[in-house]
Amino acid sequence: MNNEPMMHFSNESDPTEALRAAFRRHASGVAVITTTDTDGNPVGFTATSMTSLGANPPLSTFNVARGASSWPAISAASYVAIHTLGARNLALAQRMAADHTLRFTPDDWSTGPKGVPILHEATAVLIGRVREIHFVESNAIVVVDILEGLLGEPDDSLLYSQRAYYTPGNKLE
Amino acid sequence: MNNEPMMHFSNESDPTEALRAAFRRHASGVAVITTTDTDGNPVGFTATSMTSLGANPPLSTFNVARGASSWPAISAASYVAIHTLGARNLALAQRMAADHTLRFTPDDWSTGPKGVPILHEATAVLIGRVREIHFVESNAIVVVDILEGLLGEPDDSLLYSQRAYYTPGNKLE
Repeated sequence: MNNEPMMHFSNESDPTEALRAAFRRHASGVAVITTTDTDGNPVGFTATSMTSLGANPPLSTFNVARGASSWPAISAASYVAIHTLGARNLALAQRMAADHTLRFTPDDWSTGPKGVPILHEATAVLIGRVREIHFVESNAIVVVDILEGLLGEPDDSLLYSQRAYYTPGNKLE
Repeated sequence: MNNEPMMHFSNESDPTEALRAAFRRHASGVAVITTTDTDGNPVGFTATSMTSLGANPPLSTFNVARGASSWPAISAASYVAIHTLGARNLALAQRMAADHTLRFTPDDWSTGPKGVPILHEATAVLIGRVREIHFVESNAIVVVDILEGLLGEPDDSLLYSQRAYYTPGNKLE
Protein backbone atom coordinates (compact mmCIF):
# COMPACT_ATOMS: atom_id res chain seq x y z
CA MET A 1 0.00 0.00 0.00
CA ASN A 2 2.84 2.34 0.82
CA ASN A 3 3.83 2.32 -2.83
CA GLU A 4 0.57 3.92 -3.84
CA PRO A 5 -0.27 6.13 -0.94
CA MET A 6 -2.59 8.44 -2.76
CA MET A 7 -4.85 5.64 -3.91
CA HIS A 8 -6.62 6.22 -0.62
CA PHE A 9 -7.66 9.74 -1.51
CA SER A 10 -9.10 11.94 -4.19
CA ASN A 11 -7.50 15.33 -4.55
CA GLU A 12 -9.44 18.54 -3.96
CA SER A 13 -7.26 21.32 -5.30
CA ASP A 14 -9.65 24.16 -4.41
CA PRO A 15 -8.74 25.02 -0.82
CA THR A 16 -12.15 26.40 0.14
CA GLU A 17 -13.87 23.28 -1.17
CA ALA A 18 -11.27 21.15 0.58
CA LEU A 19 -11.94 22.88 3.91
CA ARG A 20 -15.68 22.45 3.53
CA ALA A 21 -15.38 18.81 2.56
CA ALA A 22 -13.06 18.02 5.46
CA PHE A 23 -15.34 19.75 7.98
CA ARG A 24 -18.29 17.76 6.69
CA ARG A 25 -16.36 14.80 8.10
CA HIS A 26 -15.61 16.47 11.43
CA ALA A 27 -18.04 16.99 14.32
CA SER A 28 -17.83 19.80 16.87
CA GLY A 29 -19.13 20.47 20.34
CA VAL A 30 -21.57 23.35 20.60
CA ALA A 31 -21.16 26.36 22.89
CA VAL A 32 -22.90 29.71 23.25
CA ILE A 33 -20.82 32.80 23.98
CA THR A 34 -22.57 35.77 25.58
CA THR A 35 -21.64 39.27 26.64
CA THR A 36 -23.33 42.65 26.91
CA ASP A 37 -23.15 45.41 24.35
CA THR A 38 -22.27 48.99 25.24
CA ASP A 39 -25.96 49.70 25.90
CA GLY A 40 -26.12 46.86 28.40
CA ASN A 41 -28.14 44.54 26.17
CA PRO A 42 -27.36 40.83 26.04
CA VAL A 43 -25.56 39.59 22.94
CA GLY A 44 -24.68 36.01 22.10
CA PHE A 45 -23.97 33.48 19.42
CA THR A 46 -23.60 29.76 18.89
CA ALA A 47 -19.95 28.74 18.45
CA THR A 48 -18.54 25.44 17.27
CA SER A 49 -14.95 26.67 17.63
CA MET A 50 -14.79 26.95 21.42
CA THR A 51 -11.94 24.92 22.85
CA SER A 52 -9.54 24.70 25.76
CA LEU A 53 -6.07 26.25 25.69
CA GLY A 54 -4.57 24.57 28.73
CA ALA A 55 -5.81 24.24 32.28
CA ASN A 56 -2.93 25.86 34.23
CA PRO A 57 -3.78 28.67 33.98
CA PRO A 58 -7.24 27.90 32.61
CA LEU A 59 -7.71 29.42 29.16
CA SER A 60 -10.20 29.03 26.35
CA THR A 61 -10.35 30.22 22.77
CA PHE A 62 -13.13 30.73 20.26
CA ASN A 63 -13.27 32.17 16.77
CA VAL A 64 -15.70 34.75 15.45
CA ALA A 65 -16.20 36.40 12.08
CA ARG A 66 -15.73 40.14 12.29
CA GLY A 67 -18.83 40.52 10.13
CA ALA A 68 -21.00 38.71 12.70
CA SER A 69 -23.75 40.58 14.52
CA SER A 70 -22.08 39.84 17.86
CA TRP A 71 -18.68 41.11 16.82
CA PRO A 72 -19.01 44.76 17.91
CA ALA A 73 -19.99 43.65 21.41
CA ILE A 74 -17.35 40.91 21.61
CA SER A 75 -14.62 43.25 20.39
CA ALA A 76 -15.46 45.75 23.14
CA ALA A 77 -16.12 43.23 25.91
CA SER A 78 -14.06 42.84 29.05
CA TYR A 79 -15.94 39.71 30.13
CA VAL A 80 -17.78 36.88 28.41
CA ALA A 81 -19.72 33.80 29.46
CA ILE A 82 -18.97 30.54 27.67
CA HIS A 83 -21.87 28.09 27.93
CA THR A 84 -21.53 24.39 27.21
CA LEU A 85 -24.73 22.90 25.83
CA GLY A 86 -26.56 19.62 26.13
CA ALA A 87 -29.31 17.87 24.21
CA ARG A 88 -31.96 19.89 26.08
CA ASN A 89 -30.43 23.08 24.60
CA LEU A 90 -31.11 22.25 20.94
CA ALA A 91 -33.63 25.10 20.52
CA LEU A 92 -31.25 27.49 22.28
CA ALA A 93 -28.40 26.56 19.95
CA GLN A 94 -30.63 27.11 16.93
CA ARG A 95 -31.96 30.42 18.22
CA MET A 96 -28.46 31.71 19.01
CA ALA A 97 -27.46 31.00 15.40
CA ALA A 98 -30.51 32.68 13.83
CA ASP A 99 -31.95 36.24 13.77
CA HIS A 100 -29.84 38.16 16.26
CA THR A 101 -32.78 40.29 17.40
CA LEU A 102 -34.60 37.21 18.69
CA ARG A 103 -31.84 35.39 20.52
CA PHE A 104 -32.75 36.28 24.11
CA THR A 105 -36.16 35.72 25.68
CA PRO A 106 -37.04 37.39 28.98
CA ASP A 107 -37.09 34.28 31.11
CA ASP A 108 -34.17 32.18 30.02
CA TRP A 109 -31.25 34.28 31.20
CA SER A 110 -30.07 36.49 34.03
CA THR A 111 -27.14 38.74 34.71
CA GLY A 112 -24.37 36.73 36.33
CA PRO A 113 -20.85 37.28 37.64
CA LYS A 114 -18.99 40.19 36.00
CA GLY A 115 -22.30 41.35 34.52
CA VAL A 116 -22.41 38.74 31.78
CA PRO A 117 -25.69 37.15 30.60
CA ILE A 118 -26.10 33.61 31.93
CA LEU A 119 -28.39 31.21 30.07
CA HIS A 120 -30.13 29.21 32.78
CA GLU A 121 -30.38 25.85 31.05
CA ALA A 122 -26.76 25.44 29.97
CA THR A 123 -24.88 22.41 31.29
CA ALA A 124 -22.03 24.64 32.49
CA VAL A 125 -20.90 28.25 32.23
CA LEU A 126 -17.36 29.59 32.30
CA ILE A 127 -16.98 33.23 33.27
CA GLY A 128 -13.95 34.68 31.53
CA ARG A 129 -11.98 37.85 30.96
CA VAL A 130 -11.07 38.64 27.36
CA ARG A 131 -7.29 38.43 27.39
CA GLU A 132 -6.35 39.05 23.78
CA ILE A 133 -7.86 39.04 20.32
CA HIS A 134 -5.95 38.17 17.15
CA PHE A 135 -7.23 39.30 13.79
CA VAL A 136 -6.74 36.91 10.87
CA GLU A 137 -8.26 38.09 7.59
CA SER A 138 -11.90 38.91 8.38
CA ASN A 139 -11.94 36.71 11.49
CA ALA A 140 -10.87 37.01 15.10
CA ILE A 141 -9.43 34.50 17.56
CA VAL A 142 -10.55 35.43 21.07
CA VAL A 143 -8.46 34.20 24.02
CA VAL A 144 -10.18 34.13 27.40
CA ASP A 145 -8.84 33.75 30.95
CA ILE A 146 -11.29 31.60 32.88
CA LEU A 147 -12.18 33.18 36.23
CA GLU A 148 -14.82 30.86 37.68
CA GLY A 149 -17.59 28.51 36.64
CA LEU A 150 -21.20 27.56 37.16
CA LEU A 151 -22.21 23.93 36.89
CA GLY A 152 -25.72 23.09 35.79
CA GLU A 153 -27.52 19.81 35.38
CA PRO A 154 -25.47 17.41 33.25
CA ASP A 155 -26.87 16.26 29.92
CA ASP A 156 -25.68 14.53 26.78
CA SER A 157 -23.26 16.90 25.02
CA LEU A 158 -24.66 18.73 22.03
CA LEU A 159 -22.76 18.20 18.77
CA TYR A 160 -22.90 19.86 15.38
CA SER A 161 -22.01 18.05 12.19
CA GLN A 162 -23.13 18.38 8.58
CA ARG A 163 -25.60 21.18 9.39
CA ALA A 164 -27.41 19.11 12.00
CA TYR A 165 -27.27 18.53 15.75
CA TYR A 166 -26.49 15.24 17.46
CA THR A 167 -25.56 13.75 20.79
CA PRO A 168 -22.72 11.24 21.24
CA GLY A 169 -23.72 7.69 20.43
CA ASN A 170 -21.76 4.53 20.96
CA LYS A 171 -18.62 4.61 23.01
CA LEU A 172 -15.78 3.07 21.01
CA GLU A 173 -13.39 0.67 22.69
CA MET B 1 -37.48 31.49 37.57
CA ASN B 2 -35.83 34.71 36.55
CA ASN B 3 -35.95 35.84 40.16
CA GLU B 4 -33.63 33.10 41.24
CA PRO B 5 -31.39 32.59 38.27
CA MET B 6 -28.55 30.94 40.08
CA MET B 7 -30.73 28.18 41.46
CA HIS B 8 -29.89 26.42 38.20
CA PHE B 9 -26.21 26.20 38.99
CA SER B 10 -23.65 25.38 41.62
CA ASN B 11 -20.67 27.68 41.77
CA GLU B 12 -17.15 26.43 41.10
CA SER B 13 -14.85 29.22 42.24
CA ASP B 14 -11.60 27.44 41.30
CA PRO B 15 -11.09 28.35 37.65
CA THR B 16 -9.04 25.27 36.75
CA GLU B 17 -11.67 22.98 38.26
CA ALA B 18 -14.38 25.00 36.51
CA LEU B 19 -12.66 24.56 33.14
CA ARG B 20 -12.26 20.83 33.67
CA ALA B 21 -15.85 20.40 34.79
CA ALA B 22 -17.23 22.36 31.84
CA PHE B 23 -15.15 20.38 29.34
CA ARG B 24 -16.41 17.15 30.82
CA ARG B 25 -19.77 18.34 29.47
CA HIS B 26 -18.41 19.28 26.04
CA ALA B 27 -17.50 16.88 23.23
CA SER B 28 -14.90 17.56 20.55
CA GLY B 29 -14.09 16.29 17.10
CA VAL B 30 -10.76 14.52 16.80
CA ALA B 31 -8.00 15.44 14.36
CA VAL B 32 -4.37 14.44 13.92
CA ILE B 33 -1.81 17.08 12.98
CA THR B 34 1.40 15.93 11.30
CA THR B 35 4.56 17.52 10.06
CA THR B 36 8.23 16.57 9.70
CA ASP B 37 10.99 17.47 12.13
CA THR B 38 14.26 19.03 11.04
CA ASP B 39 15.72 15.55 10.49
CA GLY B 40 12.89 14.68 8.12
CA ASN B 41 11.14 12.30 10.52
CA PRO B 42 7.34 12.31 10.79
CA VAL B 43 5.86 13.95 13.88
CA GLY B 44 2.21 14.07 14.85
CA PHE B 45 -0.32 14.36 17.62
CA THR B 46 -4.01 13.96 18.30
CA ALA B 47 -5.77 17.32 18.65
CA THR B 48 -9.26 18.06 19.92
CA SER B 49 -8.83 21.80 19.37
CA MET B 50 -8.72 21.84 15.58
CA THR B 51 -11.37 24.13 14.14
CA SER B 52 -12.20 26.30 11.15
CA LEU B 53 -11.43 30.01 11.03
CA GLY B 54 -13.50 30.97 8.02
CA ALA B 55 -13.71 29.54 4.53
CA ASN B 56 -12.79 32.59 2.41
CA PRO B 57 -9.85 32.38 2.56
CA PRO B 58 -9.81 28.89 4.08
CA LEU B 59 -8.12 28.93 7.47
CA SER B 60 -7.86 26.54 10.38
CA THR B 61 -6.53 26.79 13.92
CA PHE B 62 -5.35 24.32 16.49
CA ASN B 63 -3.78 24.65 19.93
CA VAL B 64 -0.70 22.88 21.21
CA ALA B 65 1.15 22.89 24.53
CA ARG B 66 4.70 24.13 24.13
CA GLY B 67 5.80 21.29 26.37
CA ALA B 68 4.40 18.67 23.97
CA SER B 69 6.75 16.29 22.18
CA SER B 70 5.54 17.62 18.82
CA TRP B 71 6.08 21.27 19.66
CA PRO B 72 9.70 21.65 18.43
CA ALA B 73 8.69 20.31 15.02
CA ILE B 74 5.45 22.29 14.85
CA SER B 75 7.20 25.50 15.86
CA ALA B 76 9.71 25.09 13.04
CA ALA B 77 7.31 23.79 10.40
CA SER B 78 6.36 25.57 7.22
CA TYR B 79 3.66 23.03 6.35
CA VAL B 80 1.36 20.71 8.27
CA ALA B 81 -1.28 18.11 7.41
CA ILE B 82 -4.56 18.23 9.32
CA HIS B 83 -6.34 14.88 9.29
CA THR B 84 -10.01 14.46 10.16
CA LEU B 85 -10.72 11.08 11.73
CA GLY B 86 -13.55 8.59 11.62
CA ALA B 87 -14.60 5.62 13.74
CA ARG B 88 -12.13 3.39 11.87
CA ASN B 89 -9.29 5.61 13.15
CA LEU B 90 -9.81 4.94 16.86
CA ALA B 91 -6.49 3.10 17.25
CA LEU B 92 -4.71 5.84 15.29
CA ALA B 93 -6.15 8.55 17.56
CA GLN B 94 -5.03 6.62 20.63
CA ARG B 95 -1.56 5.96 19.24
CA MET B 96 -1.07 9.62 18.27
CA ALA B 97 -1.85 10.61 21.86
CA ALA B 98 0.50 8.05 23.47
CA ASP B 99 4.27 7.41 23.42
CA HIS B 100 5.61 9.77 20.78
CA THR B 101 8.28 7.30 19.66
CA LEU B 102 5.62 4.81 18.57
CA ARG B 103 3.17 7.03 16.71
CA PHE B 104 4.11 6.15 13.13
CA THR B 105 4.23 2.64 11.70
CA PRO B 106 5.94 1.98 8.38
CA ASP B 107 2.83 1.17 6.37
CA ASP B 108 0.18 3.64 7.46
CA TRP B 109 1.59 6.87 6.07
CA SER B 110 3.39 8.37 3.10
CA THR B 111 4.95 11.68 2.22
CA GLY B 112 2.33 13.89 0.60
CA PRO B 113 2.06 17.38 -0.87
CA LYS B 114 4.58 19.87 0.58
CA GLY B 115 6.47 16.97 2.12
CA VAL B 116 4.03 16.43 4.99
CA PRO B 117 3.23 12.95 6.34
CA ILE B 118 -0.20 11.74 5.19
CA LEU B 119 -1.98 9.08 7.25
CA HIS B 120 -3.68 6.83 4.69
CA GLU B 121 -6.83 5.96 6.58
CA ALA B 122 -7.97 9.46 7.54
CA THR B 123 -11.37 10.59 6.29
CA ALA B 124 -9.84 13.79 4.90
CA VAL B 125 -6.54 15.66 4.95
CA LEU B 126 -5.99 19.39 4.68
CA ILE B 127 -2.54 20.49 3.55
CA GLY B 128 -1.71 23.83 5.10
CA ARG B 129 0.96 26.46 5.47
CA VAL B 130 1.67 27.68 8.98
CA ARG B 131 0.67 31.33 8.82
CA GLU B 132 1.19 32.54 12.37
CA ILE B 133 1.65 31.22 15.89
CA HIS B 134 0.50 33.05 19.01
CA PHE B 135 2.00 32.19 22.36
CA VAL B 136 -0.32 32.29 25.36
CA GLU B 137 1.27 31.22 28.65
CA SER B 138 2.84 27.79 27.95
CA ASN B 139 0.57 27.15 24.95
CA ALA B 140 0.49 28.10 21.29
CA ILE B 141 -2.35 28.85 18.90
CA VAL B 142 -1.34 27.80 15.39
CA VAL B 143 -3.09 29.44 12.43
CA VAL B 144 -2.93 27.59 9.11
CA ASP B 145 -3.69 28.65 5.54
CA ILE B 146 -5.34 25.71 3.80
CA LEU B 147 -3.75 25.04 0.41
CA GLU B 148 -5.48 21.90 -0.82
CA GLY B 149 -7.16 18.77 0.41
CA LEU B 150 -7.33 15.00 0.07
CA LEU B 151 -10.66 13.26 0.54
CA GLY B 152 -10.70 9.69 1.80
CA GLU B 153 -13.50 7.26 2.43
CA PRO B 154 -16.21 8.86 4.58
CA ASP B 155 -16.91 7.40 8.00
CA ASP B 156 -18.74 8.34 11.19
CA SER B 157 -16.87 11.28 12.74
CA LEU B 158 -14.67 10.44 15.69
CA LEU B 159 -15.47 12.33 18.90
CA TYR B 160 -13.71 12.71 22.22
CA SER B 161 -15.54 13.34 25.46
CA GLN B 162 -14.85 12.48 29.08
CA ARG B 163 -11.62 10.63 28.24
CA ALA B 164 -13.35 8.31 25.78
CA TYR B 165 -14.08 8.14 22.07
CA TYR B 166 -17.53 8.13 20.48
CA THR B 167 -19.31 8.56 17.19
CA PRO B 168 -22.36 10.79 16.75
CA GLY B 169 -25.60 9.10 17.75
CA ASN B 170 -29.12 10.31 17.29
CA LYS B 171 -29.80 13.31 15.12
CA LEU B 172 -31.83 15.84 17.09
CA GLU B 173 -34.76 17.58 15.45
